[in-house]
Amino acid sequence: MENPTRPSGRSANAMRPVSITRRFTRHAEGSVLVCFGDTQVLCNASVENRVPGFLRGKGEGWVTAEYGMLPRATHTRSDREAARGKQGGRTLEIQRLIGRALRACVDRTALGERTITLDCDVLQADGGTRTAAITGAYVALADAIQGLLDAKAILRNPLHGAVAAVSVGIYRGMPVLDLDYAEDSDCDTDMNIVMNDGGGFIEVQGTAEGHAFRRDELNALLSLAEQGCRELLAAQQAALAG
Amino acid sequence: MENPTRPSGRSANAMRPVSITRRFTRHAEGSVLVCFGDTQVLCNASVENRVPGFLRGKGEGWVTAEYGMLPRATHTRSDREAARGKQGGRTLEIQRLIGRALRACVDRTALGERTITLDCDVLQADGGTRTAAITGAYVALADAIQGLLDAKAILRNPLHGAVAAVSVGIYRGMPVLDLDYAEDSDCDTDMNIVMNDGGGFIEVQGTAEGHAFRRDELNALLSLAEQGCRELLAAQQAALAG
Amino acid sequence: MENPTRPSGRSANAMRPVSITRRFTRHAEGSVLVCFGDTQVLCNASVENRVPGFLRGKGEGWVTAEYGMLPRATHTRSDREAARGKQGGRTLEIQRLIGRALRACVDRTALGERTITLDCDVLQADGGTRTAAITGAYVALADAIQGLLDAKAILRNPLHGAVAAVSVGIYRGMPVLDLDYAEDSDCDTDMNIVMNDGGGFIEVQGTAEGHAFRRDELNALLSLAEQGCRELLAAQQAALAG
Amino acid sequence: MENPTRPSGRSANAMRPVSITRRFTRHAEGSVLVCFGDTQVLCNASVENRVPGFLRGKGEGWVTAEYGMLPRATHTRSDREAARGKQGGRTLEIQRLIGRALRACVDRTALGERTITLDCDVLQADGGTRTAAITGAYVALADAIQGLLDAKAILRNPLHGAVAAVSVGIYRGMPVLDLDYAEDSDCDTDMNIVMNDGGGFIEVQGTAEGHAFRRDELNALLSLAEQGCRELLAAQQAALAG
Amino acid sequence: MENPTRPSGRSANAMRPVSITRRFTRHAEGSVLVCFGDTQVLCNASVENRVPGFLRGKGEGWVTAEYGMLPRATHTRSDREAARGKQGGRTLEIQRLIGRALRACVDRTALGERTITLDCDVLQADGGTRTAAITGAYVALADAIQGLLDAKAILRNPLHGAVAAVSVGIYRGMPVLDLDYAEDSDCDTDMNIVMNDGGGFIEVQGTAEGHAFRRDELNALLSLAEQGCRELLAAQQAALAG
Amino acid sequence: MENPTRPSGRSANAMRPVSITRRFTRHAEGSVLVCFGDTQVLCNASVENRVPGFLRGKGEGWVTAEYGMLPRATHTRSDREAARGKQGGRTLEIQRLIGRALRACVDRTALGERTITLDCDVLQADGGTRTAAITGAYVALADAIQGLLDAKAILRNPLHGAVAAVSVGIYRGMPVLDLDYAEDSDCDTDMNIVMNDGGGFIEVQGTAEGHAFRRDELNALLSLAEQGCRELLAAQQAALAG
Repeated sequence: MENPTRPSGRSANAMRPVSITRRFTRHAEGSVLVCFGDTQVLCNASVENRVPGFLRGKGEGWVTAEYGMLPRATHTRSDREAARGKQGGRTLEIQRLIGRALRACVDRTALGERTITLDCDVLQADGGTRTAAITGAYVALADAIQGLLDAKAILRNPLHGAVAAVSVGIYRGMPVLDLDYAEDSDCDTDMNIVMNDGGGFIEVQGTAEGHAFRRDELNALLSLAEQGCRELLAAQQAALAG
Repeated sequence: MENPTRPSGRSANAMRPVSITRRFTRHAEGSVLVCFGDTQVLCNASVENRVPGFLRGKGEGWVTAEYGMLPRATHTRSDREAARGKQGGRTLEIQRLIGRALRACVDRTALGERTITLDCDVLQADGGTRTAAITGAYVALADAIQGLLDAKAILRNPLHGAVAAVSVGIYRGMPVLDLDYAEDSDCDTDMNIVMNDGGGFIEVQGTAEGHAFRRDELNALLSLAEQGCRELLAAQQAALAG
Repeated sequence: MENPTRPSGRSANAMRPVSITRRFTRHAEGSVLVCFGDTQVLCNASVENRVPGFLRGKGEGWVTAEYGMLPRATHTRSDREAARGKQGGRTLEIQRLIGRALRACVDRTALGERTITLDCDVLQADGGTRTAAITGAYVALADAIQGLLDAKAILRNPLHGAVAAVSVGIYRGMPVLDLDYAEDSDCDTDMNIVMNDGGGFIEVQGTAEGHAFRRDELNALLSLAEQGCRELLAAQQAALAG
Repeated sequence: MENPTRPSGRSANAMRPVSITRRFTRHAEGSVLVCFGDTQVLCNASVENRVPGFLRGKGEGWVTAEYGMLPRATHTRSDREAARGKQGGRTLEIQRLIGRALRACVDRTALGERTITLDCDVLQADGGTRTAAITGAYVALADAIQGLLDAKAILRNPLHGAVAAVSVGIYRGMPVLDLDYAEDSDCDTDMNIVMNDGGGFIEVQGTAEGHAFRRDELNALLSLAEQGCRELLAAQQAALAG
Repeated sequence: MENPTRPSGRSANAMRPVSITRRFTRHAEGSVLVCFGDTQVLCNASVENRVPGFLRGKGEGWVTAEYGMLPRATHTRSDREAARGKQGGRTLEIQRLIGRALRACVDRTALGERTITLDCDVLQADGGTRTAAITGAYVALADAIQGLLDAKAILRNPLHGAVAAVSVGIYRGMPVLDLDYAEDSDCDTDMNIVMNDGGGFIEVQGTAEGHAFRRDELNALLSLAEQGCRELLAAQQAALAG
Repeated sequence: MENPTRPSGRSANAMRPVSITRRFTRHAEGSVLVCFGDTQVLCNASVENRVPGFLRGKGEGWVTAEYGMLPRATHTRSDREAARGKQGGRTLEIQRLIGRALRACVDRTALGERTITLDCDVLQADGGTRTAAITGAYVALADAIQGLLDAKAILRNPLHGAVAAVSVGIYRGMPVLDLDYAEDSDCDTDMNIVMNDGGGFIEVQGTAEGHAFRRDELNALLSLAEQGCRELLAAQQAALAG
């Protein structure tokens, strides 16, 4: 069988162009615009000197995330969640994922009784918003933490390692890296992978959309994801060095 | 290193006793009490002759799930979601997972313009409520569909194959099958796997709670899950034959 | 006029079979499954060492109830209140009634600054869920309080006497005891009565569904209710002695 | 034992001065200000040519009520329910009661596919707001129905008889009629009774606040309520004749 | 062009009859029924010894307002906001305006850590409810503050000057004062003006409904409003002297 | 008295640099990033072939707006409205204003049964977000309408004229144009003005924050606003010609 062609013409293991722009807005302690191709997510890190009730008085900090999609980030307008009066299940699921992913590289005791909130707002969506959000939010988090270190508000760096995330999937029988919207809406399996810079897995979330996937397909997807995350981790370091 | 002992004394690949009781309540078209050890979930299937708005007039059916936990299913009482006025993120995430898992084995065109809702209510929780819910809900769904076939409301069986789910995790360095609460609250990696009776994966959701997991650990977990799902799929068939 | 026959074949003053099962689930301080025929309500008592704001610092405890109906406890599925985002008027009315009824037999000063919450969740409904809930919740409350006494957390028994509840109504002109669903949906008058073990009335709530009821009809209903509550109070004591 | 004195100096069977003012505001089809002493409730009847979903196409009408309390109708300010974002349990309970009471005297088929909503808003509260609301809402309902008859929108009067309501209670051991706030907050038993002009009972709702009440006490309260409702039914007729 | 006639027959600069009735209900620290013609608003001032979170511990007080419209204050019934579960945008806008207007004449330091809430509830609407509310609420506020002074709870009068409000608009080309509903629903420009007794402007809110308004039209409207506010300020003083 | 200096060093009648970038995101029918200095608002216009219920079947279209502020658009993080479950009063007030302003230049009959929604989301705030939103939303609206004309979906241009908005205020006694955050939080009077390209006023909303403003101050502010709106209307035309 001939190799199916990806709608974008990319080869199976090619990511879209990735850009990470720091200091995108001026008020946040960390502010990053991350683009995976046409997917654009603004990730703002805010530091506050308080923790949620369940942590009060324990000498630990908290890292959490909120996720939103501007109503017209998508092909057709979707309802504004603030106007509907509640966040949908997809939104809650994604922001819980982002928060867990980032907490995996933070020593919360070294952070002290502080909360860092990562607001990830999708300005334009073309598939992979949650993986872009995690990848960008890490950089915003690193900037916010550096600010605390620079100000000597904390003495020890709470950040151990880095995390990045990418999607992989089976498009017309072919395992591919970094799905865009055209692929995402027409693929058999969709998987989001979060990894750290030690090559360990933080999250693996795979869903069979069409037929169930076999163990060998899963293995092929994991290998693609490992490559993609390595590239993203390098892009993060390049941005932070910039 | 000596092998750590599981709190329950089970061997690493031993599931808890599983029971599947059909016709547990009398009104629902399918009603199953599923127990994975001390975890007890009541799964009721309701058939209604209408579909959500986005499917109206398309000649297709819908299968969906709702999940709830009785306030005192757990060690300490948790707030009643109806009283708080909204379902939490965990609840939404789980009920979305159950719905996706079951839709993976249903031909929605054969179902006609009907909705089958699977209400999965946890009466008692001891870890693994979402995997027990999926496993039990499948049996309730099968009973509801058999009722439609018996009544000649539908002519062709919309059910293709079966699905079951189990949790696996790394407890004190040891990959183990079917985590109970004592293990779940003290494990490094927690993974929920949904498989079908063809040995294919429907969902893979793994989270590193402590340290990130390596590829070989992931492989060990997947193998345990394959075994667990095989046992559960057999238990489902035994129950349906009963 | 010939005597009308009840749908169940019961005589006018016959209750349905009543069962009260203690320790139905394992986490709650008191856990009772109560059945009035096909009506099944799970009543869990939870003890917490805090009181609502209006009682803080007054040295008194609180006893309250929450009521819920599983979506498919009924003939046709009803919306899940947690998903709709609010509890309906009927639910609020019933849980307020259960709370008042139980507080009528508790010395809240002897309880100390504790809250006991009675969660009454209907697994299966066939009429009389609120009266079953009160009757079962009393037993769960008694178990929870006994636990506090056994643990010497409190020194004096806050429970004075017992309460039970039953419904009565006029079905096709005949006063009858303990309405089931078939009667409830086709009766002229529906009345719920809560009594204590001293023969006193705690609550009397009667509604004319069809024609208004006369004083003599009311008297006949009250006499039936007195008999029914006596039987239920005996069943509670038998269960607690078990 | 000497007879206790009521705070207001009234004799045990004396109601407060009752006034019923029709056409209190100008837009509503029926608008009544009813006062039981210092309790003042504005009852507006609105006629709309539509029915709730469950009645659509059945050729029947609907009569329903909504109840509200201005935030400063009471001694201390209570939260505005619109600002809190939900109606409390007490509010829902009362408006359900008012609706049921009024439907008891309406032939909904004669009403045609119309809804009459009775908005009962408490301007000033001094005990007995729900019984005043029922009593006043009946007059507003009668005015609204008369308007439909006058306009020949309906040909047959849907109103059969009248309903009125009063509270009774046991204050310091003495059965008394029409509790004001001072008595209501310090009484052992509180009962609200709705009756029709045929002397039949529509609703009986009694609650023991302190000690449980005996059968003979209940009988004394019912007799007082019969007298009070007779007086209120006469006041309604006088107002309607005015 | 001939002068158009106002629906009410009033001349262009004539206000409707204004009445201000103090002590309208008995519980509130200030209670005023204000009428601008058929527009009737009950304004109750409540004093509470606490302040919102953002002012706690600052030694300052707060003055705020809530606004509501009884469902049948209007020609056709509108939904009860408490039942819908939220206040509409118009309501929030108006209550924010009332609060700002009244704070403009209060020295919040002299008030001490107290909140005065002005509940403005529209019993009957015929245009101009927000301006009537501001005008009446000022008098209720003055009464509440006098009560604090009389009780020596505060030593210095926090009230500096007075505020009143009126609407003006361009009706069929003619600038007119104090629009009633018939004019309001058929006018080109609608403007609400709040002024103080020093002749200064507190709020100017003008909206072009039909064509945009010119500078000279705006000037004519402002002059009418100045006259109207002067009359209202005099009516307030007369009422307070009464 | 010497002239006070504006924090930005601008002269009293100098606006901040204004930029209007069209086609900022790719999915919306009109997408504009508007900047008034450091205030950045993304204005997306979405065309949908349906109208709200109150316009159905009337052959008219609708133009409406929604407004949001990213949580960290401001100096300190504010709560996400979607997470809190409701839009605040300020948000509702602003989006109602934007909608009214834009409808003032649209012939809704020529639009046909379509809704154009303007989503105005503040990415970065430095004062004047609502006036920037109106100014930018007009351009997005013009682009969306041009798209309909180009596609021949409509035959006649519904747009008559243009609207723009600017804020003015009295900063330390000096009337100034286009307040930034530093001025806004420290000014005596704050006024937002919407004008059309014919020099007419669409909205005038002025609030005395400190002392009340006099007629002559109001006149000075209006003159500044006229100048500012002229400049903004020119900037809009330049952008649309680009």
